[in-house]
Amino acid sequence: MSPRALVSLVGAGPGHPDYLTVKGLRRLQSADVVFHDALVTPEVLALAVNAERVDVGKRAGRDSTPQQVIEAAMIASARRGLRVVRLKGGDSFVFGRGGEEALALEAAGIPFEIVPGVSAAIAAPALGGIPITHRGISSAALIINGSDPVEFERITAGLAPGSCTLVVMMGFRTREALADALIDRGWPAATPAAIVVGASTAHEFTWRGSLSELAIAAIAPSSRDRPGTLIIGGVASLQLRLTNGVPDLAEVVS
Amino acid sequence: MSPRALVSLVGAGPGHPDYLTVKGLRRLQSADVVFHDALVTPEVLALAVNAERVDVGKRAGRDSTPQQVIEAAMIASARRGLRVVRLKGGDSFVFGRGGEEALALEAAGIPFEIVPGVSAAIAAPALGGIPITHRGISSAALIINGSDPVEFERITAGLAPGSCTLVVMMGFRTREALADALIDRGWPAATPAAIVVGASTAHEFTWRGSLSELAIAAIAPSSRDRPGTLIIGGVASLQLRLTNGVPDLAEVVS
Repeated sequence: MSPRALVSLVGAGPGHPDYLTVKGLRRLQSADVVFHDALVTPEVLALAVNAERVDVGKRAGRDSTPQQVIEAAMIASARRGLRVVRLKGGDSFVFGRGGEEALALEAAGIPFEIVPGVSAAIAAPALGGIPITHRGISSAALIINGSDPVEFERITAGLAPGSCTLVVMMGFRTREALADALIDRGWPAATPAAIVVGASTAHEFTWRGSLSELAIAAIAPSSRDRPGTLIIGGVASLQLRLTNGVPDLAEVVS
Repeated sequence: MSPRALVSLVGAGPGHPDYLTVKGLRRLQSADVVFHDALVTPEVLALAVNAERVDVGKRAGRDSTPQQVIEAAMIASARRGLRVVRLKGGDSFVFGRGGEEALALEAAGIPFEIVPGVSAAIAAPALGGIPITHRGISSAALIINGSDPVEFERITAGLAPGSCTLVVMMGFRTREALADALIDRGWPAATPAAIVVGASTAHEFTWRGSLSELAIAAIAPSSRDRPGTLIIGGVASLQLRLTNGVPDLAEVVS
């Protein structure tokens, strides 16, 4: 295999190119081919100036590329001596199938590396003004996939209500069932809750309310198809007023 | 207040400057003063080329600067019209007191922003070859502070053994008590466990074993004073062989 061959599993961060890592940026700039998900923003993709860009993500109305096909394509590209970037929204190892892809690359004898990214599990709450831990409020955070309410209930069933922050990824559409499951287990209906949609993008939107109001949360129409992160627990009542939304002072001033 | 005044709460990532975000790098480069913790590496600090650098972190043998003193110093610097960076290892909102500092800045009327970083809670396992979630093994991860075993036990007591990955920060010294607490609650002694110390630095070291072996884990002497992340759960048995340790191919090849 060409000594140039390398597959980099890169986390793209929450969406804005500002939150890409320095190494992630370098890998995109030197990539020959980028296999990316639907969650990766056009602004981040545009940084791969010399690369062929292959969309292997889910879109409304059509299925995503099967995982095995993605893995085979990465392996074939590396065997041709290409610099390959597998680009995921957030971080590859937080519900990103990075582990599966790494195992497939390893089995095929392809050199690969992990380039961690800023996970939306932490950055989406942060950019919405919510720390997932806060002294006196929460000293733990459970990051959990909400797409399967039965699995969600199985994992959270034993948690003492309010004992940690819940950060729910892929739980926007199932939020009513998730909230019901928690309330059934004794979480107070008034537990603070928030939804951060499209964090770091022009469509960023934060809703705040209570656990019992999650199901009826009003989300701006333009934000409904964006990835949303739910935050449940006392920290969701904090409302830090960041200046992140204003023009970038570094550029304005210097 | 000078329109230039701004406090940026920046997450430095796990240690190597490669894992700083693009925005974090820009903020360091334009900073007038940087207040940093002991966990921030010299390599990241060196990027703040024009800044006064103030160490407010804990060191062996002496206490850290009191939180109120740090906050007052940031506020005073901003009022003098300076560009201030508050630099934390990992991410400011994961056991980083970012929330407290943001509230203090807000109360003082100081413009501030959050620049999320790559948290060691996710990146340390990843760089050790361990995804914190993995299909068929774990669909949730509890990120928890291990410094107080009583609090740790209170939060984890109800979790069904093995139902999610445990990622324990600040739990290296207390690991025997933490492991005992889990085993008492029915976690199998053979549950896979790992410790990643000094992730992304020259002192990176990964230990793998079982929950019952955590207490007697042999850690290289040069790594013992570095921040360590414990990973407990099935994912710790995955041993992805990354090429991250080899010379940076992008620089070698291009």
